[in-house]
Amino acid sequence: MAHRLAEIAGWVGGRLLGDGEAGIEGLRPLGEAGPGDLAFAAGAGAEGAARASRAGALLVAAPVEGFAGAQIVVADPRAAYGEVLERMHPPRRAVPGVHATAVVDAAASVDPGAEVGPFAVVGAGSRIAAGAILDAHVVVGRACEVGEDCLLHAHAVLYDGTRIGAGCIVHAGAVLGSDGFGYRPVGGVPRKIPQVGHVEIGEQVEIGANTTVDRATLGVTAIGAHAKIDNLVQVAHNVTVGRGAILCAQAGVAGSTRLGDGVVLAGQAGVTDHRVVGAGARVSAKSAVMKDVEPGQDVAGIPAVPAPLWRRQQALLRRLADWAARLRRLERQLGREREEGPSD
Amino acid sequence: MAHRLAEIAGWVGGRLLGDGEAGIEGLRPLGEAGPGDLAFAAGAGAEGAARASRAGALLVAAPVEGFAGAQIVVADPRAAYGEVLERMHPPRRAVPGVHATAVVDAAASVDPGAEVGPFAVVGAGSRIAAGAILDAHVVVGRACEVGEDCLLHAHAVLYDGTRIGAGCIVHAGAVLGSDGFGYRPVGGVPRKIPQVGHVEIGEQVEIGANTTVDRATLGVTAIGAHAKIDNLVQVAHNVTVGRGAILCAQAGVAGSTRLGDGVVLAGQAGVTDHRVVGAGARVSAKSAVMKDVEPGQDVAGIPAVPAPLWRRQQALLRRLADWAARLRRLERQLGREREEGPSD
Amino acid sequence: MAHRLAEIAGWVGGRLLGDGEAGIEGLRPLGEAGPGDLAFAAGAGAEGAARASRAGALLVAAPVEGFAGAQIVVADPRAAYGEVLERMHPPRRAVPGVHATAVVDAAASVDPGAEVGPFAVVGAGSRIAAGAILDAHVVVGRACEVGEDCLLHAHAVLYDGTRIGAGCIVHAGAVLGSDGFGYRPVGGVPRKIPQVGHVEIGEQVEIGANTTVDRATLGVTAIGAHAKIDNLVQVAHNVTVGRGAILCAQAGVAGSTRLGDGVVLAGQAGVTDHRVVGAGARVSAKSAVMKDVEPGQDVAGIPAVPAPLWRRQQALLRRLADWAARLRRLERQLGREREEGPSD
Repeated sequence: MAHRLAEIAGWVGGRLLGDGEAGIEGLRPLGEAGPGDLAFAAGAGAEGAARASRAGALLVAAPVEGFAGAQIVVADPRAAYGEVLERMHPPRRAVPGVHATAVVDAAASVDPGAEVGPFAVVGAGSRIAAGAILDAHVVVGRACEVGEDCLLHAHAVLYDGTRIGAGCIVHAGAVLGSDGFGYRPVGGVPRKIPQVGHVEIGEQVEIGANTTVDRATLGVTAIGAHAKIDNLVQVAHNVTVGRGAILCAQAGVAGSTRLGDGVVLAGQAGVTDHRVVGAGARVSAKSAVMKDVEPGQDVAGIPAVPAPLWRRQQALLRRLADWAARLRRLERQLGREREEGPSD
Repeated sequence: MAHRLAEIAGWVGGRLLGDGEAGIEGLRPLGEAGPGDLAFAAGAGAEGAARASRAGALLVAAPVEGFAGAQIVVADPRAAYGEVLERMHPPRRAVPGVHATAVVDAAASVDPGAEVGPFAVVGAGSRIAAGAILDAHVVVGRACEVGEDCLLHAHAVLYDGTRIGAGCIVHAGAVLGSDGFGYRPVGGVPRKIPQVGHVEIGEQVEIGANTTVDRATLGVTAIGAHAKIDNLVQVAHNVTVGRGAILCAQAGVAGSTRLGDGVVLAGQAGVTDHRVVGAGARVSAKSAVMKDVEPGQDVAGIPAVPAPLWRRQQALLRRLADWAARLRRLERQLGREREEGPSD
Repeated sequence: MAHRLAEIAGWVGGRLLGDGEAGIEGLRPLGEAGPGDLAFAAGAGAEGAARASRAGALLVAAPVEGFAGAQIVVADPRAAYGEVLERMHPPRRAVPGVHATAVVDAAASVDPGAEVGPFAVVGAGSRIAAGAILDAHVVVGRACEVGEDCLLHAHAVLYDGTRIGAGCIVHAGAVLGSDGFGYRPVGGVPRKIPQVGHVEIGEQVEIGANTTVDRATLGVTAIGAHAKIDNLVQVAHNVTVGRGAILCAQAGVAGSTRLGDGVVLAGQAGVTDHRVVGAGARVSAKSAVMKDVEPGQDVAGIPAVPAPLWRRQQALLRRLADWAARLRRLERQLGREREEGPSD
């Protein structure tokens, strides 16, 4: 289903150079795009690649001389590209109804506008709002709430008492509300401390595949609205994740830690327990936050330090061999003979 | 369902100051507790917070002057708190019976006192003991054993031959008995080595959500009794995990490594293959054990070294810039001119 | 079902010393093997262990003097062992048929030679080839292709459009084709960029338990033939993994990165986005690749550097305390008094 170029230019409020009646079938990267495709050119080196592109049309910040196809000029081509992608691929909508094989408890409430897939299970006291989709094999425990237009992919699991706001996406295999990891030593071995809190997730949150969010020991583990959590991330009991925070794949947040609004954890980063990471702070990939982080700060390293300091430390480390040599030279110059043997 | 304060004091063997007939409905943190709640006060700064708390009653090590509510004096308020939590939230008990939708092989044996949930699958030759709960969508392969009073949460998977002792908890999405990661080069590509061992798990073990424990190539991957394993942990083929060991979230243990009794791996820690980590050793968060670790030792870093050495190294690293400056000054003082250009 | 020793010697083209009619029931490690078992002896110290072994027979590179049982002499005992294991434990074969509880869309095509287990779901437009096995609870979305003789273990999930070549193994809980992690800032919060590409997996690939492979934003996330991916690995959108690459447990590869043929990522290693890791390169455990890596290079560290340099840096770090002392001594020798206070 092709879209007219004039229509696309209208979506993004862009200025069209070329034939508005030309049809665009899809979006592709500059280097792969063909006559029926739209691509975008932005950033260093993009102009050369744009000129060589076989794309039918381009989204650009300024007209590219020598490009054969049509062009749509917009302030931010990358953002416009995201917008076109969204128009051409609107989110899946619920096909209302409960699959014959689903097991919905008599004391659960599923809105007639919700879609419940094969083998889905919904426990007593749970409420599934209009427009929500429970894909195949989704398990919703007891006393849960799933907001309007949520999309729970296959095999997602909600333990009892989990609440999810409107418009959330939960990917396959994600587990929300599993027990926090709490024990006390009794007789020389760890003994489970009951985990009786729950998980609350704000609206428009996305949770990645096979990610785990534990329930609180008491009270709540809370994920703020618009937070985006990637695959295989661990969020421990009693954690608070701020509005619009971004947790990349395999990041982990230990118990009772609070991440402020807009915090970014890059891939495989970790934060130890009972820490506070201020709003807008950014933690580099593979780093480990072991102290509180100020709002807006960029940190890196294990343990994490301010990013400029980390870069300086890395630069210093690369010079260690040079220093060793210089130190040795100074010692020789001073005629010093070390009693404890060779200097290196 | 409220409990009388006198009854609670009895559970923990504490001395009650206040009205024994007062009802307690739940437990909450000091700062959030209200008149119907019990909280505990322990550690630095707790006394001030206790005095300001609106909790109906406190568990304390010594009476807090000026606190308005009741108090229960015990030797270890934190432990007593765990105990009260356990009394007020006893573990879920099996509701005996097999759900109509479950698929239990004719050659499997499910005790009449076990609970088997919707869409659960139990393979030929497997035995499910009394009191065990297989939640919705649990898959138990062939020739498995699930001990008494085990709780397997939704979507847990046991490959063929997996054995689990009594009283274990396996969280949603955990996979026990998947193939070990073993290949041999044939014709320039890796070729699978069949993994024909199995997994054995002692009693009272807890396995976190989406955690994976691989079967042995030959023989057994063994998790000792009372071990507690958090979410998203990887335990590779032929590993042995000791009794009461604690593996925090996203930790990983490579093939054939042996963790002694009571070993603690903090979050995102790793141990390479064929290592021995002695009983009671503790590995810091984000560390990587690449050599054997002595019993009782605390290690940290990548590669992991004894924790005091790691801390010393970190302190030294922070002084690198200072040393560079001092080295430069010494060189200047000695009138040295370096042939190879500026010193930094 | 025992095998005659002469038959086993024939499988591996070995020279048999001993009774060819003796029966071998299984394979075991040297130290655990008994009279009915075959073991292998290779590497340093193996000869002593071989002599003491109670195994019925050994695979060896040269005859072991003083060993009581039979021996099969081969060029590479370890490889021969893998081969015997493979002969004695051939891969599971499909038992053709679709389980009565499975939900197969009318517009899907399941070959009569495929096996579809209980509660499996196959979406419209998907094709399941002959010999393929979909174990219990496997979910195959729409427009997927599952090649001949694939084995999808319980709870594996394929999102719409995922294609898997012949002979692949996908372990329990693995998720293929989940959305890539892409957002653009709109109104101060991240807004989802539709992820409309897909995942393509070559033949003979193995994917570990609870591993996640995201679909491309546009185009394809591609896993090359014979690649082997362990448990809990993250492969992000638009990544390319080369033929025969090995990704160990908990490794992660960020968006658009290309791993060449035969690349090895050790456990918990990570590669940041838009990197190129050349063919045959090897990344050490827990390392983080932040720059491109040349073909054939071994790298280690955070950020990863060539492995010899990393080892040199580690050695230098261990000497920091010594240097600090030497620097102090030089300063004293020069009668220098530092204005800014004690030197350490």
